[in-house]
Amino acid sequence: MIRFDCDYLEGAHPKVLKRIVDANYEQTLGYGNDDYTIQAVNKIKEVCKSDNIDVHFLVGGTQTNLTVISSMLKPYHAVICADTAHINVHETGAIEAVGHKIITIKNEEGKISSNQIQEIIDEHYSSEGPGAEHTAKPKLVFLSLPTECGTNYTKKELKNIYDVCKANNLYLYIDGARLGYGLVAKDTDIKISDLPKLCDVFYIGGTKQGALFGEAVVIINDELKEDFRYCIKQRGALLAKGRLLALQFLALMDKDLYFTLSKQAIDLSVKIKEAFINNGYRLLYNSFTNQQFIIMPNEKLDKLSKKFAVLRWKKYDEENTVIRVCTSWATTVENVDKLIKEIEKL
Amino acid sequence: MIRFDCDYLEGAHPKVLKRIVDANYEQTLGYGNDDYTIQAVNKIKEVCKSDNIDVHFLVGGTQTNLTVISSMLKPYHAVICADTAHINVHETGAIEAVGHKIITIKNEEGKISSNQIQEIIDEHYSSEGPGAEHTAKPKLVFLSLPTECGTNYTKKELKNIYDVCKANNLYLYIDGARLGYGLVAKDTDIKISDLPKLCDVFYIGGTKQGALFGEAVVIINDELKEDFRYCIKQRGALLAKGRLLALQFLALMDKDLYFTLSKQAIDLSVKIKEAFINNGYRLLYNSFTNQQFIIMPNEKLDKLSKKFAVLRWKKYDEENTVIRVCTSWATTVENVDKLIKEIEKL
Amino acid sequence: MIRFDCDYLEGAHPKVLKRIVDANYEQTLGYGNDDYTIQAVNKIKEVCKSDNIDVHFLVGGTQTNLTVISSMLKPYHAVICADTAHINVHETGAIEAVGHKIITIKNEEGKISSNQIQEIIDEHYSSEGPGAEHTAKPKLVFLSLPTECGTNYTKKELKNIYDVCKANNLYLYIDGARLGYGLVAKDTDIKISDLPKLCDVFYIGGTKQGALFGEAVVIINDELKEDFRYCIKQRGALLAKGRLLALQFLALMDKDLYFTLSKQAIDLSVKIKEAFINNGYRLLYNSFTNQQFIIMPNEKLDKLSKKFAVLRWKKYDEENTVIRVCTSWATTVENVDKLIKEIEKL
Amino acid sequence: MIRFDCDYLEGAHPKVLKRIVDANYEQTLGYGNDDYTIQAVNKIKEVCKSDNIDVHFLVGGTQTNLTVISSMLKPYHAVICADTAHINVHETGAIEAVGHKIITIKNEEGKISSNQIQEIIDEHYSSEGPGAEHTAKPKLVFLSLPTECGTNYTKKELKNIYDVCKANNLYLYIDGARLGYGLVAKDTDIKISDLPKLCDVFYIGGTKQGALFGEAVVIINDELKEDFRYCIKQRGALLAKGRLLALQFLALMDKDLYFTLSKQAIDLSVKIKEAFINNGYRLLYNSFTNQQFIIMPNEKLDKLSKKFAVLRWKKYDEENTVIRVCTSWATTVENVDKLIKEIEKL
Repeated sequence: MIRFDCDYLEGAHPKVLKRIVDANYEQTLGYGNDDYTIQAVNKIKEVCKSDNIDVHFLVGGTQTNLTVISSMLKPYHAVICADTAHINVHETGAIEAVGHKIITIKNEEGKISSNQIQEIIDEHYSSEGPGAEHTAKPKLVFLSLPTECGTNYTKKELKNIYDVCKANNLYLYIDGARLGYGLVAKDTDIKISDLPKLCDVFYIGGTKQGALFGEAVVIINDELKEDFRYCIKQRGALLAKGRLLALQFLALMDKDLYFTLSKQAIDLSVKIKEAFINNGYRLLYNSFTNQQFIIMPNEKLDKLSKKFAVLRWKKYDEENTVIRVCTSWATTVENVDKLIKEIEKL
Repeated sequence: MIRFDCDYLEGAHPKVLKRIVDANYEQTLGYGNDDYTIQAVNKIKEVCKSDNIDVHFLVGGTQTNLTVISSMLKPYHAVICADTAHINVHETGAIEAVGHKIITIKNEEGKISSNQIQEIIDEHYSSEGPGAEHTAKPKLVFLSLPTECGTNYTKKELKNIYDVCKANNLYLYIDGARLGYGLVAKDTDIKISDLPKLCDVFYIGGTKQGALFGEAVVIINDELKEDFRYCIKQRGALLAKGRLLALQFLALMDKDLYFTLSKQAIDLSVKIKEAFINNGYRLLYNSFTNQQFIIMPNEKLDKLSKKFAVLRWKKYDEENTVIRVCTSWATTVENVDKLIKEIEKL
Repeated sequence: MIRFDCDYLEGAHPKVLKRIVDANYEQTLGYGNDDYTIQAVNKIKEVCKSDNIDVHFLVGGTQTNLTVISSMLKPYHAVICADTAHINVHETGAIEAVGHKIITIKNEEGKISSNQIQEIIDEHYSSEGPGAEHTAKPKLVFLSLPTECGTNYTKKELKNIYDVCKANNLYLYIDGARLGYGLVAKDTDIKISDLPKLCDVFYIGGTKQGALFGEAVVIINDELKEDFRYCIKQRGALLAKGRLLALQFLALMDKDLYFTLSKQAIDLSVKIKEAFINNGYRLLYNSFTNQQFIIMPNEKLDKLSKKFAVLRWKKYDEENTVIRVCTSWATTVENVDKLIKEIEKL
Repeated sequence: MIRFDCDYLEGAHPKVLKRIVDANYEQTLGYGNDDYTIQAVNKIKEVCKSDNIDVHFLVGGTQTNLTVISSMLKPYHAVICADTAHINVHETGAIEAVGHKIITIKNEEGKISSNQIQEIIDEHYSSEGPGAEHTAKPKLVFLSLPTECGTNYTKKELKNIYDVCKANNLYLYIDGARLGYGLVAKDTDIKISDLPKLCDVFYIGGTKQGALFGEAVVIINDELKEDFRYCIKQRGALLAKGRLLALQFLALMDKDLYFTLSKQAIDLSVKIKEAFINNGYRLLYNSFTNQQFIIMPNEKLDKLSKKFAVLRWKKYDEENTVIRVCTSWATTVENVDKLIKEIEKL
């Protein structure tokens, strides 16, 4: 069985593993109070071309989202996001469990627009209804970059969203679980060094991008920086051996390995997408990143599934299923070629 | 200014006030440990024709919803309800603040169906996606009877919903903030004594039905009865002078006053509705209860608003607004006649 | 049976009832958006001799504490209070239920000192242990005035506590469930108009002081004022017929009725206390307010309990129980005289 | 600088690392749905000599405590533990942040007794005071084995505690962050295979015991097993590459490596303790596990700290500090000998 069902199938890039193994017998302080963490923070400041950011390392995505979001909001604050946003559909109500309502916007290929956000805000302050305090107050916009559908925002779109946020006193937080796979794609002009000017907080995903695990939270807005370590600890997200996170990001950020691996993955992803198109399949979304969503007749899917693992994303209709095919830093050209041969054969 | 904008404009029915005033100098134990509370509980058992129910008195609707719902659920449990449900739109995220995700269903005139509920449940356990535990687990269906749109469920519809709940191990909780106005309307055949067979918990609204304040929670399902007083106290909902709640419900339930007042209110409501129809206005929903939702040209609305207060419910389009016109136990025939004259004049 | 077990046995002072009854058929906007609420807010500003305060009316004490405290704090913030504080012992973990740790200080007759508070803060930032972020961060001091033991703070003591709070960037919140009974007692020199200079938020208790129910929250610190109505609504504490609260406080604050009733109650309380002392009983605390705590041999207590209800506060030792005897605005001289006669007879 | 300040200074035992590295390029399902996880679960069942247990792997201790405890309790339930318990003092209010009050018992060398627990329960149901529902309801006892002070419970003591729990319908949960270091010590007769008969849930610590990270939760009580994976996911504790946890526990549990490493660590710990005693130092607690707490004159401590890192645990008095000296699976004989030489020299 060759697997393309998700992007966390293997362990880590060998350079990541090597750093962990090399440091194994060193004694360092716990909880991120070690020198490697300082180095990794500095490296990320360099990559982001910004000195005025705080960087913290957490273990996983849901953990990062609930820790960051609960640190930013008061109890009556709500989060605005796409109905397809990960926090809305695949995190078991983690955001509600820390007390916050999620207000969803109908997505367009996983994306939402500045106009839609403005509408939600306007509704909230509308003179109709019983009064604004009878609804949770929108205070944070959550985006995924790239989106859960594999699509990207352009710099213009993102700027418009952030402008709406700032004009209405809302925060913007970007989930970058697959940030690398997004930023190297051809459908966006955003660079990582743009992000400190385009949002209040974002995170650089490691788990799906060549690390064993780990996400680097970047806090730009000064008013959100204070006491963030309390939040990490309280949510059970402060790794005892914090250097494990730092070492992995040091490896990934060294000589742009993070982006090199990302590029390699999305090239293979686009190759697979084209194979599907060329063989007459329709796509659910037009993705240039590492996730492809293809509408597939159930019969063909069953045949494909004998040799290749893909994710059954959702039912399309009685005869078709949407599948997700992922590549990652670990995907090999051979395996992609085998998959393409199978697509042609089906 | 004559007001029709909501159903909590006046104080309480004189019989309700009288009972409070009459008992004023009696000394009774606090927190509902008094004899009046025992009497009121028994009275409600009699009205509901059920001995095997627990009855508790709380102060208001949002308080009741958050206390009841959080008492029924584990942290990862979600509530299913209409997108128009009060807990979803007008309670400031109170349910999320106690930790629970709300999964909404597109309403049809404020109502949802057993089929829609089954679909949500099926989606949750679907073999597609990353696994059921990545989504909050549906465990409770929330209905309002009558709905926030003034419409009603029939006994058949409600039974279907409860059957789906039981078949899937979900609870059914009914918000009865306006229960009286619903049960006496011509578009339902449900009686209050049917409710113990048709749900797990419901509440009998007092605040909008002739009391100064107060809601009577009726718990039917044995597994939800234990320790409910802890929940009331923890949420700040245990009134020190608990007898104030009991005395009010004793007055309202005496000789069916509750339903007599309800009938009187909805007769006037239907009269108003007919006046709007007869004068060429369209309705947003077809309500037979005490709330009417009328689509009104903004110009006419401005004129009407000079003498009569109605609630601007929501924008309909650039030229029209949906207004809400409410009657209540306190609405007088004279005021309704004045309003109707104005409608005719507009 | 004549009851002295608590201070919420009767309904309300007749002037309070009268205002509610008189306004019964007026139509006013809900949720405190009525003119009576404006009047009551202004009246309380006048009584507090401060224009720069926000005033909100809530229903009960636990509700007020959980709403106020959760509005002031971030998730990792802790509350410092006496181990005997109401929020620590008799509110069913309501503060923890909204997410906050309570750090207790050993009380001295219900009181805590500025030095004790400073110690807790110092411990928190101590260079010992794993790092400050491994403990919840103290951010709020909670006091009751008078305390749950019937004792009082002097102006000097309160000022010292507030100075420590300000010096360390903590808030001070005062629970005034029995504020009147405290302020008129001979063991304090604090006046209600001092409070806006001596804390960030306090509340003026109504429930135990002549109202049917109701507490007036006074917010002094500007940074705590924003959006407080969202907090009230979210916690289910926004009374639909908000005028009921305003009318009661208007009656109580008119011509100092609140303080006149308080004085009357504590005079009777001190009379009872002296009767106990004169008959050889020991006191647990030396209270000059409306609650007395007397150590009583169980045998005598059983005898007393045949005619008079007192609260069994806690076991003192195998042979003795601490009882609580309360007076209130409603306590009559005749009943007190009967109690004293019984004490003498025992 | 040679460090003895905590037990998570180094990475992992080489056999643990090897398993991670060896599996690096294998493709396995995420979230613990892989074969290694099945193997590791079975291995732990074998070690615990029980088939009727559920095993789940989480990343860290605070995360495990908040996930397990919130899965076991209803909102009004409280946790009973020693005042020195980790959840009370060093987890930033994580348990309160998920809504639960902690009721502390004065520890004796880190331990609490069955009698003390019974007293708390009796107090809760006492006929004194305003009624049981005015206090949070004790439902769970939390113990650490070994305790945070390095001490141990005997089998008899633990059985007594569990008997009190069962007799009063409370759960018992054991935090085993350092379980190995406790079980191999000479002051307890508990074996790991006894634990399924002596509590409802416990966890086997990996982070401090030779793993990079990881804790294995063992659920014994059937009523606590359902839906635990939802709880893990909701708290952000479901590791994407779940096999990383399984592989580490497979390495540690293979041929008793876990206990061999534990024994090695505590032998060195006792050697250090004896060196301190022999040189005239007093101990704060008499520990036979891997943590030693020594009272040290500040001057000598400053001298020691030039070459050796120890944790300043807390101030003892003006002239003395309590230090914590830890050994672990990674501590070498050479470093211990150097430390002992320094102790003798001081």
